[in-house]
Amino acid sequence: MFKLLKECGSARRGVLTTRHGEIQTPIFMPVGTQATVKAMTPSQVEDVGAQIILGNTYHLNLRPGSKLVEAMGGLHKFMNWEKPILTDSGGFQVFSLAQLRKVKEEGIEFRSHLDGKKLFLGPKECYQIQAELGTDIAMVLDECPPFPCERTACESAVQRTIRWAQEFKNHADNDGFIERGHHVFGIIQGSIYDDLRIQCAEALADLNFPGYAVGGVSVGEPEEEMIRQVAACAPVMPREKPRYVMGVGTPPQLLQMIGLGMDMFDCVMPTRLARHANVFTVDGLINLKNERYKHDDTPIMNADNYTCRNFSRAYLRHLVQAKELLASTLLSIHNLHFFLDLMSQARAHIEAGDYDAWSKAWIERFTFKD
Amino acid sequence: MFKLLKECGSARRGVLTTRHGEIQTPIFMPVGTQATVKAMTPSQVEDVGAQIILGNTYHLNLRPGSKLVEAMGGLHKFMNWEKPILTDSGGFQVFSLAQLRKVKEEGIEFRSHLDGKKLFLGPKECYQIQAELGTDIAMVLDECPPFPCERTACESAVQRTIRWAQEFKNHADNDGFIERGHHVFGIIQGSIYDDLRIQCAEALADLNFPGYAVGGVSVGEPEEEMIRQVAACAPVMPREKPRYVMGVGTPPQLLQMIGLGMDMFDCVMPTRLARHANVFTVDGLINLKNERYKHDDTPIMNADNYTCRNFSRAYLRHLVQAKELLASTLLSIHNLHFFLDLMSQARAHIEAGDYDAWSKAWIERFTFKD
Repeated sequence: MFKLLKECGSARRGVLTTRHGEIQTPIFMPVGTQATVKAMTPSQVEDVGAQIILGNTYHLNLRPGSKLVEAMGGLHKFMNWEKPILTDSGGFQVFSLAQLRKVKEEGIEFRSHLDGKKLFLGPKECYQIQAELGTDIAMVLDECPPFPCERTACESAVQRTIRWAQEFKNHADNDGFIERGHHVFGIIQGSIYDDLRIQCAEALADLNFPGYAVGGVSVGEPEEEMIRQVAACAPVMPREKPRYVMGVGTPPQLLQMIGLGMDMFDCVMPTRLARHANVFTVDGLINLKNERYKHDDTPIMNADNYTCRNFSRAYLRHLVQAKELLASTLLSIHNLHFFLDLMSQARAHIEAGDYDAWSKAWIERFTFKD
Repeated sequence: MFKLLKECGSARRGVLTTRHGEIQTPIFMPVGTQATVKAMTPSQVEDVGAQIILGNTYHLNLRPGSKLVEAMGGLHKFMNWEKPILTDSGGFQVFSLAQLRKVKEEGIEFRSHLDGKKLFLGPKECYQIQAELGTDIAMVLDECPPFPCERTACESAVQRTIRWAQEFKNHADNDGFIERGHHVFGIIQGSIYDDLRIQCAEALADLNFPGYAVGGVSVGEPEEEMIRQVAACAPVMPREKPRYVMGVGTPPQLLQMIGLGMDMFDCVMPTRLARHANVFTVDGLINLKNERYKHDDTPIMNADNYTCRNFSRAYLRHLVQAKELLASTLLSIHNLHFFLDLMSQARAHIEAGDYDAWSKAWIERFTFKD
């Protein structure tokens, strides 16, 4: 169940209800690839304000396996996370295996990157795995075309994406999955071809999914092209359903896409950059390896999170230089809090009715140069 | 200030007052080598019951440097740890550099293991560094003989240890260090030679240190020999001063040494073993990599710590197999809590007057086999 609370230009303030509670949108979802948000405990993830996290179907299916997770009471109980979880379809990871996979009409044959074992992922298997994990929001299996992609190849990927979406939903419906309060989101593909994106979005809309995602962005195309693709999809995505852009993005990109009417996002960027000593401030990204922070006794920024309340840049830089695990934890805490707090500010400005002016000023101040 | 609250056989229950609060003894001190207990936040270290942690002078002096730490307000503020800190002398690490160091009467010339830079550590430098770190308990510079060690070499190490202890204390006294409430502990050396241990202990006792340590144990000698050396020192260590055995040990060793009248211990074992998937239970050590824990939905043991309250062995094993950083954090939390809780139990049994019977039964139950 998704409820639109307020619109401000194209930006939207909503609330999505799941089996594990409500999600206030727009929202950023921290990525917990292998049943853990890297380097953080669930209580640290909760403390930074996460409302929902993402799990990776491909990784969890290989290790520890969805059957084991199911036997342990489902992914929430297994990893001790009581709030909502969204799982991807695993398709994106399988497609990126390149030499190790073969796409057929029934699904994708591939080999595990861990042990080379031959495996198969079709709409049925994809649904089954996510159902065993006990996800709150399941993503349909889609075919994600590479960038760049010839139009004919993209046309066939879109057709297959639509057929697989239909098949996935049939399995979920037959199983009473959506009836029991789980969500299933359709995924719009079409690469750079607006008419294919629109065709895909309209076909999926006819299937009446509880939510819709823009997939196949941030796959190597220029930033402007990515924003353009999201903008092309927005008008044909049902207004009354949540809209999710998969696998993105930078803070300015998130604000731009919220401005285009998108509600949900996920990205490994904040945690991955943290593990490489890059941290976010309102003025932009800084790299704590930089000598200039050696004697800096100020926090990363004036933010209300465990890291900024308690530690100086000088200390955090020391942890980085000494290759201490605690660096990853403390910097991940800060970066995730930064993303989640940004979403909280975005929600407040949509409510206040000044979203576009605020986001424009925010984006202008932020820079990626240190 | 050390106050003996109760004795039970040779075991002692005491309280040591420092500039950063009281320490209830017997106590185990988690090791925070590089201004962090590895893979844990200070609040996690506090949550498992740590009363005091140890910092390594050698490592902190090389990186980030004691002058920088001093400029940042001292080690407590730098690493956000408001409870007591003990720092070692750095001598043990310098001696273990082998080819990279040269012992002279004035001190030790050595090269940094990080960048090969030529450095010098004498009693004066050793005091100065620890004073700059702002430690609550400073350890004198000593000469730690290897195992095995010829008697003549050991004799000269003991003599040098006594001279350096005197010199270290002179610097601390001239600086008003002890007057300001800091502690300085003397270190008893002498390897396997009881008469040298006794000679060293008596000479140090004459210098009237606020506390005394048994050093040079756990350097390769058999376990029985280690216990024997501690037993040889115990009768000549002042009764009214805290007694610290450096760098040990296993839970059964700790209980035995408490039974011999020792009060303080430190060891990297609980955190290092945790990072290699080995966790403690009352029945002994188990290795979570073992296939038998794959479907084990029980906690490591029935213990009141974050890890055991929230996660199954199956989940922890998954984190280990997937090489997730969270494994190090959660297993370190459990192992440290295990050691600290054992000390808490020891204190209770000394108070109750049944320490020897309790510790004997505890040791018999515990095994290192999985």
